[in-house]
Amino acid sequence: MSDVPANQLFDAYFTAAPMRAVFSDRGRLQGMLDFEAALARAEARVGVVPATAVAPIEAACRAELYDPLALAEAVANAGNSAIPLVKALGRQVAAGDAEAERYIHLGATSQDAMDSGLVLQLRRALTLLEEDLQRLAVALADQAARHADTPLAGRTWLQHATPVTLGMKLAGLLGALTRHRQRLRELRPRLLVLQFGGASGTLAALGEQALPVAAALAEELGLALPEQPWHTQRDRLVEFASVLGLVAGSLGKLGRDVSLLMQTEAGEVFEPAGAGRGGSSTMPHKRNPVGSAVLIAAATRAPGLVSTLFAAMPQEHERSLGLWHAEWETLPELCCLVSGALRQAIGLLEGLEVDAGRMRRNLGLTHGLVLAEAVSIALARRLGREAAHHLVEQCCRRAVEQRRALRVVLGEEARVSAELSGDELDRLLDPAHYLGQARAWVERALAEHHALGFEPHPA
Amino acid sequence: MSDVPANQLFDAYFTAAPMRAVFSDRGRLQGMLDFEAALARAEARVGVVPATAVAPIEAACRAELYDPLALAEAVANAGNSAIPLVKALGRQVAAGDAEAERYIHLGATSQDAMDSGLVLQLRRALTLLEEDLQRLAVALADQAARHADTPLAGRTWLQHATPVTLGMKLAGLLGALTRHRQRLRELRPRLLVLQFGGASGTLAALGEQALPVAAALAEELGLALPEQPWHTQRDRLVEFASVLGLVAGSLGKLGRDVSLLMQTEAGEVFEPAGAGRGGSSTMPHKRNPVGSAVLIAAATRAPGLVSTLFAAMPQEHERSLGLWHAEWETLPELCCLVSGALRQAIGLLEGLEVDAGRMRRNLGLTHGLVLAEAVSIALARRLGREAAHHLVEQCCRRAVEQRRALRVVLGEEARVSAELSGDELDRLLDPAHYLGQARAWVERALAEHHALGFEPHPA
Amino acid sequence: MSDVPANQLFDAYFTAAPMRAVFSDRGRLQGMLDFEAALARAEARVGVVPATAVAPIEAACRAELYDPLALAEAVANAGNSAIPLVKALGRQVAAGDAEAERYIHLGATSQDAMDSGLVLQLRRALTLLEEDLQRLAVALADQAARHADTPLAGRTWLQHATPVTLGMKLAGLLGALTRHRQRLRELRPRLLVLQFGGASGTLAALGEQALPVAAALAEELGLALPEQPWHTQRDRLVEFASVLGLVAGSLGKLGRDVSLLMQTEAGEVFEPAGAGRGGSSTMPHKRNPVGSAVLIAAATRAPGLVSTLFAAMPQEHERSLGLWHAEWETLPELCCLVSGALRQAIGLLEGLEVDAGRMRRNLGLTHGLVLAEAVSIALARRLGREAAHHLVEQCCRRAVEQRRALRVVLGEEARVSAELSGDELDRLLDPAHYLGQARAWVERALAEHHALGFEPHPA
Amino acid sequence: MSDVPANQLFDAYFTAAPMRAVFSDRGRLQGMLDFEAALARAEARVGVVPATAVAPIEAACRAELYDPLALAEAVANAGNSAIPLVKALGRQVAAGDAEAERYIHLGATSQDAMDSGLVLQLRRALTLLEEDLQRLAVALADQAARHADTPLAGRTWLQHATPVTLGMKLAGLLGALTRHRQRLRELRPRLLVLQFGGASGTLAALGEQALPVAAALAEELGLALPEQPWHTQRDRLVEFASVLGLVAGSLGKLGRDVSLLMQTEAGEVFEPAGAGRGGSSTMPHKRNPVGSAVLIAAATRAPGLVSTLFAAMPQEHERSLGLWHAEWETLPELCCLVSGALRQAIGLLEGLEVDAGRMRRNLGLTHGLVLAEAVSIALARRLGREAAHHLVEQCCRRAVEQRRALRVVLGEEARVSAELSGDELDRLLDPAHYLGQARAWVERALAEHHALGFEPHPA
Repeated sequence: MSDVPANQLFDAYFTAAPMRAVFSDRGRLQGMLDFEAALARAEARVGVVPATAVAPIEAACRAELYDPLALAEAVANAGNSAIPLVKALGRQVAAGDAEAERYIHLGATSQDAMDSGLVLQLRRALTLLEEDLQRLAVALADQAARHADTPLAGRTWLQHATPVTLGMKLAGLLGALTRHRQRLRELRPRLLVLQFGGASGTLAALGEQALPVAAALAEELGLALPEQPWHTQRDRLVEFASVLGLVAGSLGKLGRDVSLLMQTEAGEVFEPAGAGRGGSSTMPHKRNPVGSAVLIAAATRAPGLVSTLFAAMPQEHERSLGLWHAEWETLPELCCLVSGALRQAIGLLEGLEVDAGRMRRNLGLTHGLVLAEAVSIALARRLGREAAHHLVEQCCRRAVEQRRALRVVLGEEARVSAELSGDELDRLLDPAHYLGQARAWVERALAEHHALGFEPHPA
Repeated sequence: MSDVPANQLFDAYFTAAPMRAVFSDRGRLQGMLDFEAALARAEARVGVVPATAVAPIEAACRAELYDPLALAEAVANAGNSAIPLVKALGRQVAAGDAEAERYIHLGATSQDAMDSGLVLQLRRALTLLEEDLQRLAVALADQAARHADTPLAGRTWLQHATPVTLGMKLAGLLGALTRHRQRLRELRPRLLVLQFGGASGTLAALGEQALPVAAALAEELGLALPEQPWHTQRDRLVEFASVLGLVAGSLGKLGRDVSLLMQTEAGEVFEPAGAGRGGSSTMPHKRNPVGSAVLIAAATRAPGLVSTLFAAMPQEHERSLGLWHAEWETLPELCCLVSGALRQAIGLLEGLEVDAGRMRRNLGLTHGLVLAEAVSIALARRLGREAAHHLVEQCCRRAVEQRRALRVVLGEEARVSAELSGDELDRLLDPAHYLGQARAWVERALAEHHALGFEPHPA
Repeated sequence: MSDVPANQLFDAYFTAAPMRAVFSDRGRLQGMLDFEAALARAEARVGVVPATAVAPIEAACRAELYDPLALAEAVANAGNSAIPLVKALGRQVAAGDAEAERYIHLGATSQDAMDSGLVLQLRRALTLLEEDLQRLAVALADQAARHADTPLAGRTWLQHATPVTLGMKLAGLLGALTRHRQRLRELRPRLLVLQFGGASGTLAALGEQALPVAAALAEELGLALPEQPWHTQRDRLVEFASVLGLVAGSLGKLGRDVSLLMQTEAGEVFEPAGAGRGGSSTMPHKRNPVGSAVLIAAATRAPGLVSTLFAAMPQEHERSLGLWHAEWETLPELCCLVSGALRQAIGLLEGLEVDAGRMRRNLGLTHGLVLAEAVSIALARRLGREAAHHLVEQCCRRAVEQRRALRVVLGEEARVSAELSGDELDRLLDPAHYLGQARAWVERALAEHHALGFEPHPA
Repeated sequence: MSDVPANQLFDAYFTAAPMRAVFSDRGRLQGMLDFEAALARAEARVGVVPATAVAPIEAACRAELYDPLALAEAVANAGNSAIPLVKALGRQVAAGDAEAERYIHLGATSQDAMDSGLVLQLRRALTLLEEDLQRLAVALADQAARHADTPLAGRTWLQHATPVTLGMKLAGLLGALTRHRQRLRELRPRLLVLQFGGASGTLAALGEQALPVAAALAEELGLALPEQPWHTQRDRLVEFASVLGLVAGSLGKLGRDVSLLMQTEAGEVFEPAGAGRGGSSTMPHKRNPVGSAVLIAAATRAPGLVSTLFAAMPQEHERSLGLWHAEWETLPELCCLVSGALRQAIGLLEGLEVDAGRMRRNLGLTHGLVLAEAVSIALARRLGREAAHHLVEQCCRRAVEQRRALRVVLGEEARVSAELSGDELDRLLDPAHYLGQARAWVERALAEHHALGFEPHPA
């Protein structure tokens, strides 16, 4: 082991351990071995191989029996991972039952084992993703409800605009998550399908028994039987990758917003302070957004990885060289990055620290200008829209030039005080009274979230 | 006009005219103007603006009234296209009805007009895509059925493998198209939604009338009312872009396969020969795959464009600067490229020329070796799998070394002729008898295609 | 014209007019026509064609003689733009001099005309880029010098850190620009080379006169004669695209920083206020970073476009189909986007508004904590490093907890005042006294900038 | 170890072991530790730390003393790898010499250690790349010279065109490699620079000794002192990544061409047959291009990875969150992929099998049409260009229609035989006599290759 250079320094930061396990060497090998074992069972059921062959083959289909390093060397000669594994499996089976060895991998091609094994891994990945998305959605729903009436400055072009609420900001992400979860549900039946076509995809070597074996094999693995093999039609995988990319993008927006709100100048929300997490010994005031960094990093890396999978789609004829190979490490990497981002987002949302007082103070940074619209609308009912607009605009300009609060300027303006009392002005310039549909948006997002419900899937 | 440098030299080759029209300047302007007109109607219905304001506003909401060049200059100052358009609209309305001018764009923000206008364009684009996908699927289904039993060499790693059929190759793409069409149907309700949030997304300026106006506006435009505004949650658009990328990838595979089959050394299928299309005066034997070039080009360009849209997802707060801007030209470009690829694929499939004789001759290039598996299986029933395999392998090696047909070598081998008659050998070495499930795959793909049906949508 | 959907609504915002002209249809046609005219001259010099053929051919080599729309239709059949142009050129020449028509395009292939024409366009593009980079560098150098001592908060992870200067921030970009300009100088001789190989690249049709014609042609066009044709070795173009991507990335950082500094909460620098530029009528306090948006948009779009060009490199054999096509619109788009970003950056830097007072006030947001390091170091000389560090850390914590200025807390702390006088403390906590090498960095960046100088190139 | 999921199944196939070692966890740690040791030495030289501190610090700066897994966990809290490593280093030093512990990492920030460590790794990577590029170039030069006169069909649009030579095809790649090596030489001084700026980049904590320490540190590490720190100006790294992408693209073209030439229908060149390499037990005629697959896979993955690095350029202020993080695994992955592609290309070129006989036979597939141009030119001298062209075109058409050799058709055509004898026709239709400048291109590429020479660099 000491000779094998490991490369895991950033694993715990950028990825989640359960997803890494799915796509570890052992996970890959087990996926292919599960295929081989199920194939033996299926062919025994249909009568292609003797029933006695099944147990010895199944017994050998445990990943821990194989040495990934030795296989890795063999992969370099074979050009894929199934050829050396099937050879090693043959030796393993033969050691126990020479007869059974003849019946492994019958009628299958390497890509059948690799792709079906991958689909089995992706099923586990999908479940992990759905669980984490669900957990994140619950945390978001909780925080969105809690902060449904917590006002802060709306920001467009990074400039203060009329107020919004923290709940509404979070509900925006909740809405996206609900859609992502819908997308995963829709693609699940397309993705979780058997790959089984033999040498060129026709299953010719199995003759009349081909379809029955295929059906039994799909059943054994709990996968659907697709309309035909898909060795070089890769849209199922790339669709899944796209949704991973969408999740990364949505979480990237969360990371971007949180890190902006954590700025020294804003200080409105904070990532939860773990023991020593994100702290700086030399600068005790700092709270580094170490979780947001992961979210942004994943959203920065995902587009390139997704584009690789799109670029690898035009695979030649019945089996591609090179383009297929480009998928092998890229899709797992994407899964792992998204798993890490989800884990960080969950931690961030479940422990989010909110400084509502600072939000309110920051709302005052423009001396009330972000609420000028409210005054303008109130005055319009009495003075007409144009006159009101013009009047308020004058006051705003005066407030900016004189660096005084808009409230004061408005109070001194006779044409305003003729129409609006001091109390009325106070109310109009209170952000809490100019939040429009913010609460409605939260409620609508929550309603969609609850309507989606939780759909448990077999691991 | 002569001063405006045009850039359309490759438009007719790479894109389809109807899609270009959707995303032309006029198409963009009309999308925003349709939003403004519908907003006036909706606000009149709810009583926010007087009914008399509607007609003058509607009359001004025709794109041909506006000068894209002048607007383009104004865009450079405003930072988006809606601000100058709304100003110009105001002047246009005021010229006819000064009163009505006050009621345009009430409660809306620029991005409301731009995004809702975009969604209206995307609805037209979606219809064009669905129509073309449908037409392509019909052509594919037709050709797949016609060539369901036309054998040609299977090719894995670009090497000959056991035979497949042309129908099965085409059915592979048909299967992908059926899935793409399902995807578009699934995303349609997510994509075709109103954007309406006002300055920061709360619709505060419309007070209590906000939701009624929003609902009426959605109805006017025939769009769904989403759970909340999505100014900086862009997953809907990027999901659509992903499916465009998937279509491009599938068509890229078609282009790759066709151009490989058109190779001088293969000569098995040809793009339809239009007048002078793809010909070469200096080399009369050449038939350049000019359609396939478009398919491959689109599949090469789409991944980068899709990745741009993924990269643009982490949009800050309530309105992004820069990331939002990165979408404006990228998504239309992607739509146009895919439209062009679809058009080429339709032409290619509807007029595909097939040289079945050449396919059959090419199947003989390996002197029968691609069918050795069939002989091996037949012998296995009598000699046992191992012995049969070993025997056939020997014969194959001999055939390769002596450059003789496998049929001859097998015929001379006593252990073979003891088991298989000459007729049996002939049949075993006939590709048409070793096509396995090729026809079943075609039928299954056709069944899914027919099951999907055609779902007409309002333009 | 009214039938041709234009698409230029965002051109003036995202791109620069001179670069658009280079890559307009007319620019493309002229590039190819310049090649054809030079080829006639070169072949006449070598004696391949009669001298009398040159003038008629040259006369016809003016882009304004050709209709881009008609050519666009023909491109769709030919699969490239040179075939129809050469045909149209033939008709044009023949109309004046039937004899001369025979001598056009002799020995050349379409890609020779397209690629050499492109190189001629790229030479103009390169000059535009170098001029703009130079102008931007001068503006940066000027501003960096002017603000070499203007302190503002350093920001790491978007949190305040020890102070820096605005000059140093700008010098960082200046350093990058100097390197970009070096890169362009280094690649120029690789990029500006002739493409001339004939049908398969061997120039066989020109027999013994091939090399003399090639040399004369290169001379006529002012291009270098490369070691061999490069129809499918595209590294020259992609290298250039990479440097464009680097420029976009550097400018994206400028846009990112400026927009962050323009935030309502920061307000430290501003884009120049053009007439109405970036203003908001409804929110008079807003100054939208409309230039920064272009910088960020270009930096978001460039990576996808660059990746397309990398993806298009593995071009088959002697001429690619599809991958070559993928370059045609992508490289021009990249040039235009970078030209627009440069134009915005120049405007931004030349008119940058700086609020040094606000910078200083913002430095105080952490109550002096960002300067704790300075005190710690001063105390270390007297108390030892550990004791000093510990003492200051305690004071910092107290300042944070009690929301009091670090200066006050330190002043009250006996162990501190025993060592440092009030004046000394004031000086230590003055950002202007803790700027380290900020000025040195500015000077070093300026020195490299000046050392590079300005290298005029022929257009 | 058994608990840590390894992920190396494809490492031996896709990457080269020495490059994996450079970017292993140990390689990363050693890079940072080399920085820390050199910093101690430099600060001792300048007098910032006592000379006695150096030896204890140096002794602790060996990567094998640290547990990557424990550090990985700490990275997840710290947000980068230097903070936990420096802490662990402190404990390690303190265990031996409590006094020396105070002097580690003095004045530096985490990113100084990470970036400088990375540059040290990149220096080793650069050397590996240059060595492999050199070795590949030598192999290419050798094969290009050997096959300078070996004719094969030129192929444009995947259709046969006039003949080329294998040497010329290989020389095309040699030319690209020569340019890549030039590019690496040019960027080397830009890339191999120290990163040293302290907290915000000003080195303020080191006071007057900052520049002397920086200079000494650069000298200790054998790096150049850049004009200023580059914590958020990442063009140096991305430039390097771009050249890696260029190399991947060029090798991808090699893989594409070789796999096309290895097609069953072409059979002109073959990857060297290692023991069992690329073979198929079920299909003895197959020789899978397992090396080319790696080349194509690398060229497919590199564009996405390169685009990630471009996308990560707009790093905020003095230290980015997220964008910087996106580099950490992406650049090493790119280096490793390119190292693997280079290794495969070297093996492929050094052992390339060439079937010149098959090349010649394939040249005849179009019955001589690819040489019609030669006859046309010869006739033109006697009949005039137009008449000759017309005559040959007629003969070509006849040959195609009647499926007869062009030689026969021409021989039967009286207007041809009146001008050209049978011997002359034979010579004209011999590909070896129509190779134009193929040999000149080889010689010119060789000349540039030799002119570049070999420039040894210190590891």
